[in-house]
Order: sequence, then structure tokens, then C-alpha cells
Amino acid sequence: MIEMNAHRYCVIMCGGVGSRFWPFSRSEMPKQFLDFFGTGRTLLQMTVDRVLPLVPHERIILVSNEAYLPLLQEQLPDIPRENILLEPARRNTAPCVCWAAHHIYALDRHASIMTLPSDHLILKEEAFRQAMTHGMDFVETHDALLTLGITPTAPETGYGYIQRGQPCQDAEGITEVKCFTEKPSLEMAEVLLASGDFFWNSGIFLWKADTILRAFADLAPDIAEVFDAGDDLYATDAENDFIAGAFPTAPSISVDYAIMEKASNVFVKTVDLGWSDLGTWKALYETSPRNEQGNVTQNCRLITKDCSGSVFAIKGDKVIVAAGLENYIVAENGNALLIVPMDREQEIRHLVNEVKARFGEDYS
Amino acid sequence: MIEMNAHRYCVIMCGGVGSRFWPFSRSEMPKQFLDFFGTGRTLLQMTVDRVLPLVPHERIILVSNEAYLPLLQEQLPDIPRENILLEPARRNTAPCVCWAAHHIYALDRHASIMTLPSDHLILKEEAFRQAMTHGMDFVETHDALLTLGITPTAPETGYGYIQRGQPCQDAEGITEVKCFTEKPSLEMAEVLLASGDFFWNSGIFLWKADTILRAFADLAPDIAEVFDAGDDLYATDAENDFIAGAFPTAPSISVDYAIMEKASNVFVKTVDLGWSDLGTWKALYETSPRNEQGNVTQNCRLITKDCSGSVFAIKGDKVIVAAGLENYIVAENGNALLIVPMDREQEIRHLVNEVKARFGEDYS
Repeated sequence: MIEMNAHRYCVIMCGGVGSRFWPFSRSEMPKQFLDFFGTGRTLLQMTVDRVLPLVPHERIILVSNEAYLPLLQEQLPDIPRENILLEPARRNTAPCVCWAAHHIYALDRHASIMTLPSDHLILKEEAFRQAMTHGMDFVETHDALLTLGITPTAPETGYGYIQRGQPCQDAEGITEVKCFTEKPSLEMAEVLLASGDFFWNSGIFLWKADTILRAFADLAPDIAEVFDAGDDLYATDAENDFIAGAFPTAPSISVDYAIMEKASNVFVKTVDLGWSDLGTWKALYETSPRNEQGNVTQNCRLITKDCSGSVFAIKGDKVIVAAGLENYIVAENGNALLIVPMDREQEIRHLVNEVKARFGEDYS
Repeated sequence: MIEMNAHRYCVIMCGGVGSRFWPFSRSEMPKQFLDFFGTGRTLLQMTVDRVLPLVPHERIILVSNEAYLPLLQEQLPDIPRENILLEPARRNTAPCVCWAAHHIYALDRHASIMTLPSDHLILKEEAFRQAMTHGMDFVETHDALLTLGITPTAPETGYGYIQRGQPCQDAEGITEVKCFTEKPSLEMAEVLLASGDFFWNSGIFLWKADTILRAFADLAPDIAEVFDAGDDLYATDAENDFIAGAFPTAPSISVDYAIMEKASNVFVKTVDLGWSDLGTWKALYETSPRNEQGNVTQNCRLITKDCSGSVFAIKGDKVIVAAGLENYIVAENGNALLIVPMDREQEIRHLVNEVKARFGEDYS
């Protein structure tokens, strides 16, 4: 058992929706709430399981959307209700991070925070925990905003990249950040990969509460102002009423744009985590165990003939019988069924919009 | 309105199961009970609708299986309960025909009977009714067992064929039968089609009650004996108790084998009905209206890209989004989903058996 530092908090961002995995994920049941690998644990539960050796339930803060409170309480009954922050509007990650930092700072002026997405895959859990412990030690002793950079294994075009800069003398594997790069073309991604200096942007952030609050004040004053107005109210009974009025007035922007790309005290810890953001069916396929026929299923009752390279993501105990499907996505949940070649998955978003336009929001 | 002959009865055989349309048809909901064309009427209802100008509800007899009584009463509320004969065991068509003939003969010694499958498609309803009226006139005035032979339009290998013989002098379009031919090879089917003398065996039979009962006595005495034992009980309160004991002792054999292929007084009326036995998905596809993309659906909520030649048979108001499926069957009902190329539909039976063996009868 790792000895826990009582000032360490974990913020898990779990309010996102997304149509990329439609209809397996649905607007009322987004990806983080799904048991994507048929293991009996959802991505959100796996995220919590992963950090529990570092931070107890009492210091894990969930930031989500009001619509998902029942799911959160069902899936994570050990997280205290007061640790669940419910955004009254969708404003991307910067307002989320700023609110959570204020809330935690009100609880503990010396708090340090690891901020995590809730819907990513990390296969190397021990490497993750070592990196987080090392990273938290670093941000607690430096004026630093730290992000995890994942050692790239392929020229992925779906990820942002971070170029590492000067190494820190006193922290192995941690360097300054030279620059952030948006999702590259394939040619560019191959150059980035070959260089050895570029790492995937994991969306995992580490900082002290006061460091990130100062960064908002300096670099995103429009957001800082919104949340500073509630300074006496965080972690009190008045917090939610304040947030109900204030939160929707914050601009919608990511913490990467608002803070990380502008700050001068940004560092990256590079690490190999067996990580995927599970942003595409192809990523899910590539990171999932395959059955003898070379298909990925969520433990569903599947009989295939001459099918390979396909994902069968079906909710419930339905039987699927399929023949002659090579490299397809077959996904079903509730009132919708999707059958699309994997190399056309970028069309799914448009198709879902067409579904909603023709048949209504019940199908979103 | 055609003037009805009060001695004319209609027997509709509607007890069959079948796995060829699994999972759209299920053992608890076989093909005849399904609205296959999304018209709001099931194949069984369409069969009744088709004969109602010829025979009133009161003289339509349904022969089915005990398991389907609720479906029969739901779909055909105007058929009197006493007109529903429920077989206590599955014994193919000969015992079914023999029981129905006894039952009707007990009601009316002068009865004539048209015996119909419940799960076929007939597009030319007026030609059907004219043929039936003409055929009933014939069997009521001749010692004849009459079957309808369908003018073939393609070298189908899934149908039995009837070779016509000498024409009847006094009945246009009715000939003796030279022979019955089993499902042919493609080469043979092409020869049969080219000859002009071979017609598809429709499974539609016309006879007087006493003619068919004499035929059973002469040609299938093992069946006749079973049912003759109840001679005083048909159409009485004691009928069902008698049948419960007797019916399961009858041999399982088709009326074609037991009677038609052996009898010397067999005739065929040849006719073009726009008929299909809907025995295969391909037959369903070919006889169904197609949408703009060249696919067949049961009015389901379908969005396709680059799909053609496919059937989407989905129960309920599910949305289906599909891309890149050429000549596929996509069928779903309850706890099962099937996706198979249309040219592999002969494998469906085996696949269903595999499903039942691995996952249980709940999936049949």
C-alpha cells in the first residue's frame, strides 16, 4: 500500500457526451458509463479503480452533468454525494477544471490535484500509478502545470502531440514543453513519431490547486472572474446555487487552449502507459482482446462465419449470428442498430445527425 | 359480391414453425403471424382476407397448434372459436387434412373444401378467386382431387413441380396430373420450365369432404383408421378429447406423399397468380417492393449508404443505420440479430441449430 498524501485530490471529468460510439453509447448513457470491454466494470469505474491506491473515495471529485447523477451514484456508490459536482451547462474542460480547483482549494489550501478523463484506456496500471505519484511529488514542490505525454507507438492522426523541451534537472522523465501540436496529417504524424521528441497529449493534468487558480487568473481572466465571484461559497451549502447562476456565463473552451498552450510553467512527464483515448471504433478494436476469429465483442453471444476484423458491440444478452463481414462495426443498443464498415466510421457522426433529424432525439 | 355456395368451406393450415426466416420469425411467432410486408396485415390475415369473398368467417376452419391459439384469436377475432382446430402434436399435413375433413363432414355431408397454406404470397387476388370458384365448381361435380399449379416464371429449384396430363373436356384449364416432381436441380428446372408442361406445386387443394375421406380410406388406411375411430365425435364437445389421444398416434406425412402422388383422380388447375411460397429471403426480396436504394424493408426506420439488394427485416421501431452492405439479409427480432449474405441463406438453418445448442431454446 502506497502511503497516501492527505492533500492529494483526484478530479475525474465525466460529463461528456459523444456520438462516435453511437448507438452503443447513447446521449443518456455516454461512453464513460459503459462496460466497453465486457469485464463487468465501466470505463468510469476502471478510472476510479485505477486511482484508489493513490487517493481515497473521500478525495475523489467527479465533475459531470446533472443528467448523469443517477448513473454516477449507481456506478460509484462509495463516492460521497458532496464530491459530485454537477455542471448546469456544457462548457468544455476549462470551466470544469476551474470550478473543481476552487472547490478543492476551499476544502484544503494545500491541495494538489490530478485531473483525469473518465473514458480512456490505460493498460499499464502500475506504470500509471508510479507516474502519477512521481508527477504529484513534482507539482507539490514546483510551480508547475504538469501533463502526461504518452510515448507514441504509431503515427496516429487522431491525437494531439506535445513536443518535449529541456529536461528538468531534478525530476527524471519530466521536461519542459516546447509546444503543443494539433491532430496532424498522416505524413506529419510519421515525422513526429520518427523524431522521438513528440508525445501524445493524454489529457491527464497534475497541479497544485493554487498553481492552477493563479494560472486562470493570469491567462484566462474571463473564466477566473466568473468563478472568483463565489470564493466564499465553495464547499458550502450555497455553492450549487452560485454555480447554477455563474457556470453558464463562463466561456466554453478547453483547458488546453485556455491555459496549457499559454502558460510558461508547463511540463510534461513522458511515460508508456498502454494508453488509448478510445476515441474511435478502430482504437477500440486495436486495444481489445480478439476472439479466435479475430473479432472484438463485449462478451456478447456471437456466432460468426467468415467474419474478421470486426467489432460486435451489443448491449444485453442478444444472440448475434453473422456471416461474411470483414472489418465491420456492428453496434446495437436500445432502439438503434448500426452496421458500417470500419473504414467509414468517420461518417457515423453525420449518420447520427440524420437519424435525429428524421426520427427524433429519442434515437440520439 | 359472388353468390356464396353454403356448402363451401375453407381450411387454412397455420400450425407450421420454420427457422428459415429466423430471427424475424421465431418459434413462438412463425412466419404466418408476421406482417412481412409492413402493410399492417400478417400473411395469415392476408390469406383470410383473400378468401372472404368466397367463404364467410363461419365456414373458415383454422388448423393450427395449441401454442398459437392466442395469436389466432388476436389476429382473427372474427373466426369463431369452434372453428379453430388445435393439433396436440406436429404430424405434417396429411393428419391435418384428414382431421379437418372429418370435422367438416360432420357439419355438412355435402361440404366441399378448399385447403390453403397460410404463409404464401398471392399478388393476383382476383385471378385466385376466379380459379378457386372454378375449381370448387369442378370438384363439386366430379370425383376429383384438385390442386392449383402455378405457371412458372423462372427455373426455381425450391419448388416441387406438377406435370400436366390430358385436359378435361368440360373444364377449361384443368388437366389430369401426369406426375409430381420433387425440387429439381437448376439444369432440370430449366428443362421443366422450357417444356411448358410443368407447373409449381402450390400446396392449394380443392375437394369434396367425402372425396378426400374416401381417398384416405383407400390410399392411407393407417391415417384413416386413426381418425375414423372418432366418427361420432367430430363437431361435438367430445372432439378435442378424442383428438388429444388419437392425433399423436397418426404418422407424420405430407398430404402430397400420402394421397396426391398415389391417387388416380388427381387433377391440376393451372393458373398465374403472382404466387410465391415465400420460402426464402431471396423469394421475399424478389416479391417485395424495393425502396429507392434497391433494398426491401418492413417499414422500418432505415438509413443506408451504399447498400443495395438487401433485406432489412426488423421488428419494432428500431432505427437501422447501415453502410456498405450489398445483397445482405439483416433480420432482428427480440433477442436475436442475423446478418448474412443473401447467397448464404441456406446456412441459416444450421446457424439457428448452433444458436440453440449453444445458447438454449430461448433463442429459437
